[in-house]
Amino acid sequence: MAKLNHSLFDLKSNYLFSEIENLIKASGHKEIFNLGIGDITIPLSPYVIDAIKNASEEMKYENTLQGYGSSSGYDFLKEAIVKNDFENLNLTKEEVFITCGSKYSIANIIDLFSKDNLIGICDPTYPVYFDSNIIGGRKENIVLLPLLEENNFEPIPNQKLDIVFLCSPNNPIGTAISKKTLKKWVDFALENNSIIIFDAAYVAYIQSEDAIKSIYEIKNAKKVAIEMRSFSKTAGFTSLRCAYLVIPNRLTVKYENDNYQLNKLWNRFVSTKHGGVSYPIQKGALATFDPQGKKEVLEIINQYKENTNLLKNGLKSLNFEIFGGGDAPYIWCKTKNSLSSKAFFNLLLEHKVVCIPGSGFGSCGEGYVRFSGFTKKETINKALSQIEKI
Amino acid sequence: MAKLNHSLFDLKSNYLFSEIENLIKASGHKEIFNLGIGDITIPLSPYVIDAIKNASEEMKYENTLQGYGSSSGYDFLKEAIVKNDFENLNLTKEEVFITCGSKYSIANIIDLFSKDNLIGICDPTYPVYFDSNIIGGRKENIVLLPLLEENNFEPIPNQKLDIVFLCSPNNPIGTAISKKTLKKWVDFALENNSIIIFDAAYVAYIQSEDAIKSIYEIKNAKKVAIEMRSFSKTAGFTSLRCAYLVIPNRLTVKYENDNYQLNKLWNRFVSTKHGGVSYPIQKGALATFDPQGKKEVLEIINQYKENTNLLKNGLKSLNFEIFGGGDAPYIWCKTKNSLSSKAFFNLLLEHKVVCIPGSGFGSCGEGYVRFSGFTKKETINKALSQIEKI
Repeated sequence: MAKLNHSLFDLKSNYLFSEIENLIKASGHKEIFNLGIGDITIPLSPYVIDAIKNASEEMKYENTLQGYGSSSGYDFLKEAIVKNDFENLNLTKEEVFITCGSKYSIANIIDLFSKDNLIGICDPTYPVYFDSNIIGGRKENIVLLPLLEENNFEPIPNQKLDIVFLCSPNNPIGTAISKKTLKKWVDFALENNSIIIFDAAYVAYIQSEDAIKSIYEIKNAKKVAIEMRSFSKTAGFTSLRCAYLVIPNRLTVKYENDNYQLNKLWNRFVSTKHGGVSYPIQKGALATFDPQGKKEVLEIINQYKENTNLLKNGLKSLNFEIFGGGDAPYIWCKTKNSLSSKAFFNLLLEHKVVCIPGSGFGSCGEGYVRFSGFTKKETINKALSQIEKI
Repeated sequence: MAKLNHSLFDLKSNYLFSEIENLIKASGHKEIFNLGIGDITIPLSPYVIDAIKNASEEMKYENTLQGYGSSSGYDFLKEAIVKNDFENLNLTKEEVFITCGSKYSIANIIDLFSKDNLIGICDPTYPVYFDSNIIGGRKENIVLLPLLEENNFEPIPNQKLDIVFLCSPNNPIGTAISKKTLKKWVDFALENNSIIIFDAAYVAYIQSEDAIKSIYEIKNAKKVAIEMRSFSKTAGFTSLRCAYLVIPNRLTVKYENDNYQLNKLWNRFVSTKHGGVSYPIQKGALATFDPQGKKEVLEIINQYKENTNLLKNGLKSLNFEIFGGGDAPYIWCKTKNSLSSKAFFNLLLEHKVVCIPGSGFGSCGEGYVRFSGFTKKETINKALSQIEKI
């Protein structure tokens, strides 16, 4: 008799964002002002799209036809990433692995590790860190790291952990972790032979002069940290699917009496479990690094930044207590009158405005909601006047 | 201290096809006549490529821009699949799940099940069935089902199994499992509450009148079988990445005192572990079902069939004992003079011809090699004259 993976039953029955979608549908509203999910609303760079179209066209001709690519991505993209995103950080293309999205990177890297690792996950958190560890059978081994206002919403290394997920700039809070705190985490990991999984999906939104962009800016981080980035939030690839992770050569893990390079193990893992990312999409990702691609992508990011700012100022003028929204397109907003996250979400939904209840990201998110700048100015203005009515 | 998943060390250090690539490189030959890996050599349908380009173009405009899609695929593609690939089999779009390739489908579906299932895998086999179960910690629970000449290379249900992988038309042998044998497997699964994972990636190559195309043609198979198909071998999507699996509503698995629909569990699993398949690529897959797309795709398949035939007749005329090559583009060829698979592979490689040593697919593949019709007529003719010289 076939037997199921019991861990699946430890998951909540719906993924957070699917649940929100269902609630929106159930509301019956024809018009919705969605400040919820972090999805794109501005058309993509025409230069990047043309690169995808040209690469697709190549498939029509014998001399440019592409067959199976490497499960870990094409060299042309890896080289461009090393050169553009990690200038002066001495990475090589062999340390970069293309994936079909940060969700994939996050939820699958953890399968390289045994069940009995203690996993540090921030609370509140992007649900995939949590859920993928539940699927991996680590329900009892998750250590929640509270992100509290009194600590500037930064996680503190103050207990035993084997692997820790850090997201900076942070989803859902919208702030970047300070260099000082990240250095503490790197030192902690070096001391404890722990591994940091550093999710920098929102790096393109950093505005603070002192915020670091790559964890490898910190000394010796290459020995302990995996960095994940995505073209979704940078270049609007949410429906195109392309991301990457960096596993430095110097990151080794002990097994029995030997040390193993984790990037070799990841390579072997994906060569069995994944066929790699679509060729034209990788060519599109490459085009984001060309001067024209860069220019067009930057213009779009600036629009999202402006939107976030508009929303931030609007919420402030309505006397909401808000955080974030500077180094990431998310605003972490305290509910009014001590309403619960869910109650506030429902109240806004009654008035056709969608946010994400903070409690959906973890119990420390209770009393907050997340607003997203991935929307249109018009939506923001309408949503703000709806909120004003309440 | 971070601890590794020990099962990774039970894998062979290289994926079979990567190993072959390395050996080809090491041979130093400038010209190679590759009859090895099952990758495409004929340009893709222009109609399908244009659909991908048009869908990419949509991303430039606000009213057609696509954001996050469902992790399990777009309804437009699911509906086309149900209508075209499973006519009269009464499937619904809710039973179809789009993935980024059959490798992903195969290697990840198994994560829905606990470690302690007995897994039946044919020997020889496509390595991903085997390797993904190794990664899943089932090294001791794999039961090999020998595919022997005396049984027409068909697997026989004659021992306890919880989950069984069947590939028909078969890779590497190139034959389809008979309806009679498949019916035995369905009966076996019904009786033992086992699950059949039926990989029909090569279904488009079936020529025998009596071979079945979908396992759901067999009565009650929907209660026990998952079917997997791919656009890679049908429409040349090896570098584009799109496939799908069918998990019927009627397929339930018992856990504690309840029965659970497996497709609901898969949906929850992928919503955490995978971001879904690229939108333009799914639009391309959709175009393979349009009349013009169908026509162009069929012409390409017919060319591969002709190539396989040319290769088959060539090998026959050189007095090789061969099997398959009728319902799949693979030919299973006995080595001459009782050479081992490896020795024969090396001998051919010395003469610039590449095949895949049968032993790479499992110990019952020893004494055979796999030739592939995914190549060009010119390559086949040159390879045959090279082989003739030996």
